[in-house]
Amino acid sequence: MILVMTTIKVFEKIKLKDAILVEGLPGVGNIGRVAVGYLVEELKAKKFAELYSEWFFPFVMLQDNYQVKLLKNEFYYCKAKGKGQRDMVFLVGDCQSLTPQGHYDVVEKILDFAETIGVKEILTIGGLATGEAEAKNKVIGAVTDKKLMDRYKEYKIDFKAGEKVGYIVGAAGLLLGLWKERDKDGLCLLGQTAGFPIVTDPKAAEEVLDIVTKILKLKLDMKKLEKKVKEMEDFIKKVEALQKRALMDISKAPAGQNPPSGGEELRYIG
Amino acid sequence: MILVMTTIKVFEKIKLKDAILVEGLPGVGNIGRVAVGYLVEELKAKKFAELYSEWFFPFVMLQDNYQVKLLKNEFYYCKAKGKGQRDMVFLVGDCQSLTPQGHYDVVEKILDFAETIGVKEILTIGGLATGEAEAKNKVIGAVTDKKLMDRYKEYKIDFKAGEKVGYIVGAAGLLLGLWKERDKDGLCLLGQTAGFPIVTDPKAAEEVLDIVTKILKLKLDMKKLEKKVKEMEDFIKKVEALQKRALMDISKAPAGQNPPSGGEELRYIG
Amino acid sequence: MILVMTTIKVFEKIKLKDAILVEGLPGVGNIGRVAVGYLVEELKAKKFAELYSEWFFPFVMLQDNYQVKLLKNEFYYCKAKGKGQRDMVFLVGDCQSLTPQGHYDVVEKILDFAETIGVKEILTIGGLATGEAEAKNKVIGAVTDKKLMDRYKEYKIDFKAGEKVGYIVGAAGLLLGLWKERDKDGLCLLGQTAGFPIVTDPKAAEEVLDIVTKILKLKLDMKKLEKKVKEMEDFIKKVEALQKRALMDISKAPAGQNPPSGGEELRYIG
Amino acid sequence: MILVMTTIKVFEKIKLKDAILVEGLPGVGNIGRVAVGYLVEELKAKKFAELYSEWFFPFVMLQDNYQVKLLKNEFYYCKAKGKGQRDMVFLVGDCQSLTPQGHYDVVEKILDFAETIGVKEILTIGGLATGEAEAKNKVIGAVTDKKLMDRYKEYKIDFKAGEKVGYIVGAAGLLLGLWKERDKDGLCLLGQTAGFPIVTDPKAAEEVLDIVTKILKLKLDMKKLEKKVKEMEDFIKKVEALQKRALMDISKAPAGQNPPSGGEELRYIG
Repeated sequence: MILVMTTIKVFEKIKLKDAILVEGLPGVGNIGRVAVGYLVEELKAKKFAELYSEWFFPFVMLQDNYQVKLLKNEFYYCKAKGKGQRDMVFLVGDCQSLTPQGHYDVVEKILDFAETIGVKEILTIGGLATGEAEAKNKVIGAVTDKKLMDRYKEYKIDFKAGEKVGYIVGAAGLLLGLWKERDKDGLCLLGQTAGFPIVTDPKAAEEVLDIVTKILKLKLDMKKLEKKVKEMEDFIKKVEALQKRALMDISKAPAGQNPPSGGEELRYIG
Repeated sequence: MILVMTTIKVFEKIKLKDAILVEGLPGVGNIGRVAVGYLVEELKAKKFAELYSEWFFPFVMLQDNYQVKLLKNEFYYCKAKGKGQRDMVFLVGDCQSLTPQGHYDVVEKILDFAETIGVKEILTIGGLATGEAEAKNKVIGAVTDKKLMDRYKEYKIDFKAGEKVGYIVGAAGLLLGLWKERDKDGLCLLGQTAGFPIVTDPKAAEEVLDIVTKILKLKLDMKKLEKKVKEMEDFIKKVEALQKRALMDISKAPAGQNPPSGGEELRYIG
Repeated sequence: MILVMTTIKVFEKIKLKDAILVEGLPGVGNIGRVAVGYLVEELKAKKFAELYSEWFFPFVMLQDNYQVKLLKNEFYYCKAKGKGQRDMVFLVGDCQSLTPQGHYDVVEKILDFAETIGVKEILTIGGLATGEAEAKNKVIGAVTDKKLMDRYKEYKIDFKAGEKVGYIVGAAGLLLGLWKERDKDGLCLLGQTAGFPIVTDPKAAEEVLDIVTKILKLKLDMKKLEKKVKEMEDFIKKVEALQKRALMDISKAPAGQNPPSGGEELRYIG
Repeated sequence: MILVMTTIKVFEKIKLKDAILVEGLPGVGNIGRVAVGYLVEELKAKKFAELYSEWFFPFVMLQDNYQVKLLKNEFYYCKAKGKGQRDMVFLVGDCQSLTPQGHYDVVEKILDFAETIGVKEILTIGGLATGEAEAKNKVIGAVTDKKLMDRYKEYKIDFKAGEKVGYIVGAAGLLLGLWKERDKDGLCLLGQTAGFPIVTDPKAAEEVLDIVTKILKLKLDMKKLEKKVKEMEDFIKKVEALQKRALMDISKAPAGQNPPSGGEELRYIG
């Protein structure tokens, strides 16, 4: 018997050239999730693989009110079209791993898969909760190697992340840390968000998206972002509920018997 | 050395035709447990397999006051008899997994086993704690696919679960989510219960049972349900104690040294 | 690479005939630990194997003040000598598993080993914390099968354990539960102790020991028990500190940085 | 698929003779980390291997403010030069394992590796938080075997550790406990530190270092220690933040959504 903790289901076998993977999983301010979700929509990127894992919450989401759906991460791709563009892979999803150990396992599986499809560079997007009321729109960056800082120096990224933060937590950090161990290149962009971490911040997402589109040589109409965020509202609410739920420490209660949460969207069930 | 976290012991090798598996493990209001337990009794369904797991509580229950018994899930079957009936498998048990990761492992093992014995469809039963005093007797449903909604539309199920809940937790949800990944069909029915999750609600179980019997084309005398629930009282008390215990977070205390719980039925031992 | 979570080191290969294994690991009132420790000393039983596990605390104990020692469980044996006696194996140790899953793993390893050396029956000893001031000296029992109740009915054991407790936690329970799955026989004896679980209760241990010696057809001088408990005082203090520590939830703090505990014997280090 | 939880990357294949491994991972007062870090710097020891693990925090640190770096343990070596010296291996790093089980796994991997490169003896360094204001400069010791106590009796080590502490927690203890199971020798030195465990105590580190240099027959200028500790300040702050973070129980929050910590250096991100 083989232990398979994390499964990647591939719908379409693809082989990309010098591709860049852009990660936007739920996290602080859902900045990555919103930014990369917008890219996927605007570019009409195509879903080609899904990942699910024993390390995720033991839940199913309800889609369109009636349909059960495992918590998943999803891979989309979009081939280079315009001048200076590269093949692109987008990684979005419902959640990150529930346990520290799971983060390592899921991230290693993602990197194994990324290598097989031709990903050469990784760009992760996250948020930095400043805890201060006044917004700071400077995007903060960190890299796997000094040469990356030179490569991206033209984009007004503040490469003094270490002065403000000690660590980059979860997928946004580990994808780069473990990618670097494979002698590969990567960049992390962090939008600064004032509020509480689990409140989605489309403004901070726009700041990051502005730089990401320049890096990817994309011409996107940013004006639709706010509208798109509204359309994503139902999904965002569920992700926020999932994050709140996580803070309540699901691991303490058996499935199906979690104490009531008060909030409508969190009324448990099972 | 092979790691076997979850074991299924098969007493009788069976092969069913187009069978439906009906799950009723302990959960909110113990609705599934009571409803499916009643079906097993009334149909005189035959036990053919048992499952135990490292992911369960490290406890043994005391049966008939003197006999130790591992915590288990149990499989019963009942061949199609009446008109329009299908072969049926019933899954009941003492508990669900203690950890998030364990849920995935146990559910995958159940689905592997279900496939080998000819199960084609899964019906899971759970509860939705509304947190409101007034009872709501509408049964809520969710499905693996839209076509299932059409299949079961005649049964007065409210297929707008997503308006009331964000997720279906534990086995009731994961059995369907992971079953859907195998391109299989399934339905989840959730009884609405007003009270605190770990208080058994036979009224809500009856609401669900009313629909389940119609789906399965069974003719059952519902009047005996209340009497049966009384007969199951000892077992129900133990399951409720187990659930309370889980909420106290067993994982924090070493076995045999758990702090006293106050309640008689929870006086620890070991 | 093979995952070995639990290791049994065998010093002497033995093959016993129709042996009974008597378990006394730390637990409520340390009743089993004291009772079986006394048997080992009085019978001059011989240590022939040790078990250690990744599921134990990530600590070493300090023996004779200066010597590090992994937390272990230990196996001793004593061949049948007197009339009606059986070959005996004694299982004592410093601790039980730290996590629920670990309990199952450690217990399965013990049972695998027990089968290879000729153990046919298991007798586990634990404590029941009544939470009441007045001592109750009736020893409570539970069995794997009704026939065991008949076998041991002459020993004034109260076989109505289920009226007082819902579950038997940890090794005392799981050893029997998983042993029963192998179609083997076993008995659990629980001394009733009034006080807080992590206070050693030699009086309750004596009550249990009185029955155990009769079952094993041993003639032991009980008067030395109190003296022996005093001699074991240093060890007992360490086990109690270990148990208190467990209640503080070691899993929350990284090793070497646990918050101070106040008690002298618990001043952390590392 | 093989589960690799802990990875050791070897940069230079070395074979040492009768080497001693000196461990100084973060812990109480960071005494080991500071002392061994100073040895590595002063001896210009050469890094030859790195270890990272799924059992570590799911974080990356930020080096020089802009560069991501996995949390790691690092191996350095320095061949015997002076009279009476031995080949030396130094083990330092960013963190210890996050979970009890992880400690065993990481330590076993370290010991496997140590054996392959010729390590014969292990010297671990830790701290003992006395919880008292007045400093105690006596260094406390524990050994794998009595003969080690004789070997090191000339160095004014107080071998009555057991009178003051019950256990040695984490790597400092487990490295010796599991090394002893391989019939190998080892010594643990514990500096006494008055303050709260996660405040680095260079004074206590100096007390330990004084003995360690004598054991290793090294002539080091201790006066530079205070200066070096200042130079290490940035790293020390990060390790302290990591330790504080651990005490907040990272396992309760999903990555990227950890609640704000107040302290500047802990502002989360992800």
